[in-house]
Amino acid sequence: MPSYIAPTRDTRFVVNELLDLASYGNLPGFESATPDITDAVINEAGKFCAEVLAPLNQVGDHEGCTRHDDGSVTTPAGFKEAFKAYQESGWGTVSQPEAYGGQGLPHVMGLIVEEYMATANQAFAMYPGLTTGAVSAIMSKGNPEQQAKYLPKMIAAEWLGTMNLTEPHCGTDLGMIRTRAEPQADGSYEITGTKIFISAGEHDLTENIIHLVLAKTPGAPDSSKGISLFLVPKVLVNDDGTLGERNSLSCGSIEEKMGIHGNATCVMNYDGAKGWMIGEENKGLAAMFIMMNAARIGVGIQGLAQAEVAYQNAVTYALDRRQGRALTGPAEPEEKADPIFVHPDVRRMLMDAKAFTEAMRALSLWGGLQIDISHSAATEEERAAADRMISLLTPVLKGYGTDKGYEVCTNMQQVYGGHGYITEWGMEQFVRDARIAMIYEGTNGVQAMDLCGRKLAMNGGQAIQEFFAMVDADIAAAKGDEVLGPLAEQLEKALGQQKAATMWFMQNAMTNPNNLGAGAHHYMHIMGIVALGLMWLRMAKVAQAKLAAGSDDKAFYEAKIATARYYMDRFTPDAGALRRKIEAGSESMMALGEEAFATLA
Amino acid sequence: MPSYIAPTRDTRFVVNELLDLASYGNLPGFESATPDITDAVINEAGKFCAEVLAPLNQVGDHEGCTRHDDGSVTTPAGFKEAFKAYQESGWGTVSQPEAYGGQGLPHVMGLIVEEYMATANQAFAMYPGLTTGAVSAIMSKGNPEQQAKYLPKMIAAEWLGTMNLTEPHCGTDLGMIRTRAEPQADGSYEITGTKIFISAGEHDLTENIIHLVLAKTPGAPDSSKGISLFLVPKVLVNDDGTLGERNSLSCGSIEEKMGIHGNATCVMNYDGAKGWMIGEENKGLAAMFIMMNAARIGVGIQGLAQAEVAYQNAVTYALDRRQGRALTGPAEPEEKADPIFVHPDVRRMLMDAKAFTEAMRALSLWGGLQIDISHSAATEEERAAADRMISLLTPVLKGYGTDKGYEVCTNMQQVYGGHGYITEWGMEQFVRDARIAMIYEGTNGVQAMDLCGRKLAMNGGQAIQEFFAMVDADIAAAKGDEVLGPLAEQLEKALGQQKAATMWFMQNAMTNPNNLGAGAHHYMHIMGIVALGLMWLRMAKVAQAKLAAGSDDKAFYEAKIATARYYMDRFTPDAGALRRKIEAGSESMMALGEEAFATLA
Repeated sequence: MPSYIAPTRDTRFVVNELLDLASYGNLPGFESATPDITDAVINEAGKFCAEVLAPLNQVGDHEGCTRHDDGSVTTPAGFKEAFKAYQESGWGTVSQPEAYGGQGLPHVMGLIVEEYMATANQAFAMYPGLTTGAVSAIMSKGNPEQQAKYLPKMIAAEWLGTMNLTEPHCGTDLGMIRTRAEPQADGSYEITGTKIFISAGEHDLTENIIHLVLAKTPGAPDSSKGISLFLVPKVLVNDDGTLGERNSLSCGSIEEKMGIHGNATCVMNYDGAKGWMIGEENKGLAAMFIMMNAARIGVGIQGLAQAEVAYQNAVTYALDRRQGRALTGPAEPEEKADPIFVHPDVRRMLMDAKAFTEAMRALSLWGGLQIDISHSAATEEERAAADRMISLLTPVLKGYGTDKGYEVCTNMQQVYGGHGYITEWGMEQFVRDARIAMIYEGTNGVQAMDLCGRKLAMNGGQAIQEFFAMVDADIAAAKGDEVLGPLAEQLEKALGQQKAATMWFMQNAMTNPNNLGAGAHHYMHIMGIVALGLMWLRMAKVAQAKLAAGSDDKAFYEAKIATARYYMDRFTPDAGALRRKIEAGSESMMALGEEAFATLA
Repeated sequence: MPSYIAPTRDTRFVVNELLDLASYGNLPGFESATPDITDAVINEAGKFCAEVLAPLNQVGDHEGCTRHDDGSVTTPAGFKEAFKAYQESGWGTVSQPEAYGGQGLPHVMGLIVEEYMATANQAFAMYPGLTTGAVSAIMSKGNPEQQAKYLPKMIAAEWLGTMNLTEPHCGTDLGMIRTRAEPQADGSYEITGTKIFISAGEHDLTENIIHLVLAKTPGAPDSSKGISLFLVPKVLVNDDGTLGERNSLSCGSIEEKMGIHGNATCVMNYDGAKGWMIGEENKGLAAMFIMMNAARIGVGIQGLAQAEVAYQNAVTYALDRRQGRALTGPAEPEEKADPIFVHPDVRRMLMDAKAFTEAMRALSLWGGLQIDISHSAATEEERAAADRMISLLTPVLKGYGTDKGYEVCTNMQQVYGGHGYITEWGMEQFVRDARIAMIYEGTNGVQAMDLCGRKLAMNGGQAIQEFFAMVDADIAAAKGDEVLGPLAEQLEKALGQQKAATMWFMQNAMTNPNNLGAGAHHYMHIMGIVALGLMWLRMAKVAQAKLAAGSDDKAFYEAKIATARYYMDRFTPDAGALRRKIEAGSESMMALGEEAFATLA
């Protein structure tokens, strides 16, 4: 059975040393985030996820969820007990506002818990995970009555939430949804329609489920400007907060799918279900994006998560399994063969994983810090700048993070050779589970267009220019330094490729927007490479300072610097190839009509 | 349910127009390979695979194989009947020698049947597929008595064969095997040991199974120089060819695995089973490589196969599914949305698949032609040159073909969005089935080392120099041409990267062999890019000539040229990045010791 240890030392490195969270103590919410508190959260969350959730990961995959004839759904054995432990431990409340029963810690801390949970058991983590998005939407767009009625219970995980967007005929293009919302005399709505792919749509973990549902009111515009968001509880909630009647909605079936079997992916039928509008009529898309943006960063972290657990297990296997001899001569001549760890091609895959996961952890938590700053910084200017940065980075975290996370999982499975293909070793589950993250919450193609079509152009390109200026500043500061200088030079080349690609878009996308679409996915990857590279430069800088100060933890910091060097050697060269692909434009890509794609017998 | 149409038009293009098989009519075996014969084989094989095998692909995945308490194994519903049809149609005999009941057609033709079968149903195709390797070994190393006794039945698919290499503690490093072979007075051996991952090790398709088993004779050297190959029938064969006693071997269990569920992956227990040595004592590795090389090209074709079927279905979906609008304005304004085919990111994935599958088909069949020439050319010089070329290309076909095939499958699944993750659509099965091809018959890391550690150095680098000369000649001939010139220039850049990488290996691998190991996987990919690029240049040249001659089939040839342009635009830039990674060497890759890979809590 695969194992999982929460990488708490690395998380503490990011929180205490790289981000230096304590230095933000003047921000509201951060005053209580002292290192002793954050270390305790990190260590205890890690322990909980490793001890309670990880052992259920393979069980959940094998058993899956069961829908009964009455529409009820049973989660895999052990999930219910583990969820009870989750509720009691309060891990869902970490970064939620104290006003609703949360612990009020920075968003960064909540993301750490999200990472550990998704790493230990992604299918389980999705039950409370989707709730986070629903909570954000209610918190930002709900009225005070709705907030008071639902948020405390949802934050306490007494009730869970869902996001109902997709319908059989539409996913990305939400303007096409058909679910109807008929206004009632009492101010509520009757919701009728079918939603598909609803993660955690029905289950036995909580006594109520709060569905947030996109629907159209009568006469609404026939586009994405005509959708509204509704809160539709599984069980109606009385004014005193007790549970009332069962609402007219049900799980019609559970999808059979490639992975995340422990999570119930439901077809949800709304048959005149009672619902209440969240926010304004026809402004559902904006509310939906609030859910989405929270969810997208969480999904990016899932890419990291599956890569992390696959990596940990592949390391164990590579040190244990003996095949062949080191190319440089037997490493352990007294044994019949050397551990496969000695083979460069195995080491390549392990280093790739290490270089990705550590930087991705840093980038996602740094992104979380931007969210905190965007909410809490003293000045509007600081808040707006942080908001621009995280808006720009969100599609990169999601798109690059999950593309690369899946690739790492595939490589870690490869380390196992034939055993990687066998179910009991658990590696193939990581690949199957990781695969969904490239698809849901907006496919990675949608992320690429969000980045290139919307975010690059935001405020006349202000965000991307600020990103460039930030990376430039780090590079400039590192240049000339014996250790950091060479790293900075390699990063500078990659950044140069990104700048050139950006310029190419500016010059070529106006005349033909397909030139943007044709290069968007490549651009998202260049930006991922540069953003993770920035994290490596910064991590190497921290490590260098610690070593200079004579730290006891020499091996840890030396490994950071060596991994930074590996990253620059093996990740940054792709930026040039990606730029060349972007500059090839859309001509040869779009040249052929549909008849050229038919298979001719 | 996914569908499959055999791409017979494209195969005929390769066979008749690109390879011009008829022009080899002076070679033995080719005289009967006239276009009317080869076209008939292509068309009928395609029909058989599409009509008989493809409909069982999803069934096989869902049902899997069942092992009963007596060790017998039942294949999925329909497999037995389909196999009967396969036997009767004689598809397994196409390129086998007439002396043993084969049709004596060129090897190329057998590979076409292999492609179609693997595309329609990989799990099914593996039952006869493994037999091909066993047949090659017996044909080349068996004695006349063994050949007469087993080959006709195996070629007729009355009996199937297997390859038994892997043991629980060793796969790649076969010198470590523990299966013993005790010589008996009658010249036979008693085989005792456990083999794992034996594809088609037990099943209900044929009344006998001929296992080829690697084992060690008493006192054999404790290395790969001490292994011998044995023929161990499931049911002993009497001298008159009738079946006798059941041999003492059995299937201990079937592995649960990620995919290819329709094929029984068996643990095989040999308990003093009667076997006969194939070839010489302690020369089993050489015999094994004969099986392996045949199998490796077949596995490379599996990469193409899964990519092809995934591509065909993704095209259908992309034309059917409507979401959003073309970036250049509505393509079908009368509809609510445009087909997703209009979106550049979808087209990118489809064009990538098209550019890969068509060139991979050309390359694998061109490789098959080299095998034929290596067997049948008039002069030893021609035979040896063709043998060098296919030896060099085999790891590239297997390693690059399956890496890229898996990537294409993943992308085709991505085209489906959320539906790609759902079992019933069938796309996720293609990904799971494609995954094994990167692992078995030598992991792709082993292929990379075979290429860089053995094949590059063969005869002082003669093979790679001949490859360079061949590509150079095609580039030189194309230069200056309006259509072909630009393609040739792009290919020349990629070839330049490969040459530089080769040179770097020569200068840096002697002092530190890890420099070779660290770049081997990247090098295999550069060479895959160049080799497929050569096929595109040649296909474009054929297409150009056909267009110039006023062909009726204008659209087909124009699509070839457009796809060649896409290939050069989007595949060749990676060669430069890969070279830079190779030139980074092994230093940062191997810098860290095992303690740096431990997860620290």
